[in-house]
Amino acid sequence: MEHEFLEWLRPRLPPHPNLRLGVGDDAAIVTLARDAGCVVSVDLLSDGVDFRLAEVDPRRVGRKALAVNLSDLAAMAARPLAAVVALNLPRTGALQLAQTLYEGLLPLAAEYDLAIAGGDTNVWDGPLVVCVTVLGEARPERALRRSGGQPGDCVLVTGPCGGSILGRQFDFTPRVREALLLAERYEVHAAIDISDGLALDLSRLAAASGCGAVLRTSDVPIAAAAHELARQQPELGTPLDHALGDGEDFELLLALSPTEARRLLADQPLSGQLQAIGELTLELGLWEQRPDGTHSPLQPRGFVH
Amino acid sequence: MEHEFLEWLRPRLPPHPNLRLGVGDDAAIVTLARDAGCVVSVDLLSDGVDFRLAEVDPRRVGRKALAVNLSDLAAMAARPLAAVVALNLPRTGALQLAQTLYEGLLPLAAEYDLAIAGGDTNVWDGPLVVCVTVLGEARPERALRRSGGQPGDCVLVTGPCGGSILGRQFDFTPRVREALLLAERYEVHAAIDISDGLALDLSRLAAASGCGAVLRTSDVPIAAAAHELARQQPELGTPLDHALGDGEDFELLLALSPTEARRLLADQPLSGQLQAIGELTLELGLWEQRPDGTHSPLQPRGFVH
Repeated sequence: MEHEFLEWLRPRLPPHPNLRLGVGDDAAIVTLARDAGCVVSVDLLSDGVDFRLAEVDPRRVGRKALAVNLSDLAAMAARPLAAVVALNLPRTGALQLAQTLYEGLLPLAAEYDLAIAGGDTNVWDGPLVVCVTVLGEARPERALRRSGGQPGDCVLVTGPCGGSILGRQFDFTPRVREALLLAERYEVHAAIDISDGLALDLSRLAAASGCGAVLRTSDVPIAAAAHELARQQPELGTPLDHALGDGEDFELLLALSPTEARRLLADQPLSGQLQAIGELTLELGLWEQRPDGTHSPLQPRGFVH
Repeated sequence: MEHEFLEWLRPRLPPHPNLRLGVGDDAAIVTLARDAGCVVSVDLLSDGVDFRLAEVDPRRVGRKALAVNLSDLAAMAARPLAAVVALNLPRTGALQLAQTLYEGLLPLAAEYDLAIAGGDTNVWDGPLVVCVTVLGEARPERALRRSGGQPGDCVLVTGPCGGSILGRQFDFTPRVREALLLAERYEVHAAIDISDGLALDLSRLAAASGCGAVLRTSDVPIAAAAHELARQQPELGTPLDHALGDGEDFELLLALSPTEARRLLADQPLSGQLQAIGELTLELGLWEQRPDGTHSPLQPRGFVH
């Protein structure tokens, strides 16, 4: 199966200036810019856990498996270079499934100028498992981290959150270009991508920075899908609940000094989506600030692995 | 679970000079030597396919999941730097299983001076899946490839083959140090590691080099385990059959010019294990040469994915 699949795949892989040796040897060789560090991230997605193959086009699964990793590179402001893709395919229809996954994955790779450098294609009696590892490059001292935030920093989000389960969980845009632009032009102290939920991921950025965080919940941009979901199933919570806890938004949370945040918000270099939603604080923990100025503890809701 | 596991893992990860940012952020940052390319390989191992968790200590599974990747780096003569580890753990006893896997994986990482840079730890209702991606470094023009062999090259193997199922499939030594030494001191034209079977992997090296290969089967070093297996189950084949087709030996096949091969065999820098077993040929295909000098086609036996 693997041999047949590679025969199909090989002519579909364009050359890439950083790929010195690609699919077909024991390992691949990727070159980096001088002074760049190799930024690496892995995500493993499984049928029944991260998607339901019976309900979703495998193209969207293939796309998502790469996109979640690109989002991790975005959170570091790293430039994507290459990916390796390991698959566990259900025995029946394995070759066709592999091809369909790649039909979703390859266009996204092309869009982000990313080489498919290699992989491991297996057939088994279990459900589909897709494990993508991405390599990117960034100068180590320039890469964004979760841990660089400071008390008093403004917290910004790159777009609206909530309700990703209605489709955005597959079709989201990893904020790679946005992160590279922001890290180039502004002094960003810390960043994280919202994979598990705005509240939970903000609490992680704050904790990694040795800070707490206050969230102005009335300023949180709420996705149309979060409103839709609240209309469809009011028992699951308000649109704000969805925005805070759903996860898989893959927007970025950024911490910048108040001065730098003001400059960034005035510029709005990302066509107006950037929104200030809170501050990092000396006091640890996660807090909600209501429009009347009162504070209360906020549950760091989200998806816990 | 992932949070608890990382609390356990973090103090067990020693610092590493090439790891600028490790476990706990959205991605890791690994630095490479100037002029080095990043050599990357991925292998995904699953319960019921690559091992049986009911029959083997998870420490050996963890060790193997890393070791097979180190063997791929060895085949390129790349220096190991870092690995990321993605897990799908069965729900019951997930934390303990993850810890036990790492108890096998971490000592091997330490032995090869490899940093554990990150991972993705998931719990699900399926069987154990372990997906390791390794990063190594090599100057791209110095890395070994399958494709550099030339007609007339001698083919050498770094150690005896066959019968790995009796235990060596878990406990083998990835030939990293051997490969680095050989690539440093000798002009090696091509290399591959024996993962799927000596005959099959030799046919792959030959094909990638645009050559055929003749194997002097009487010169193939046969592992004691291959003799043992043939004694236990004579119906499965002779010791030579096991040496040619079993796979998971993780020895290296090397192609060198006859002059260079003679120098290498005279030096025996790897404590006497290196053995010449055949030649690359202009004529395509895989051939057996018997002691009386006669040739016949040889089936490229081995494990086909």
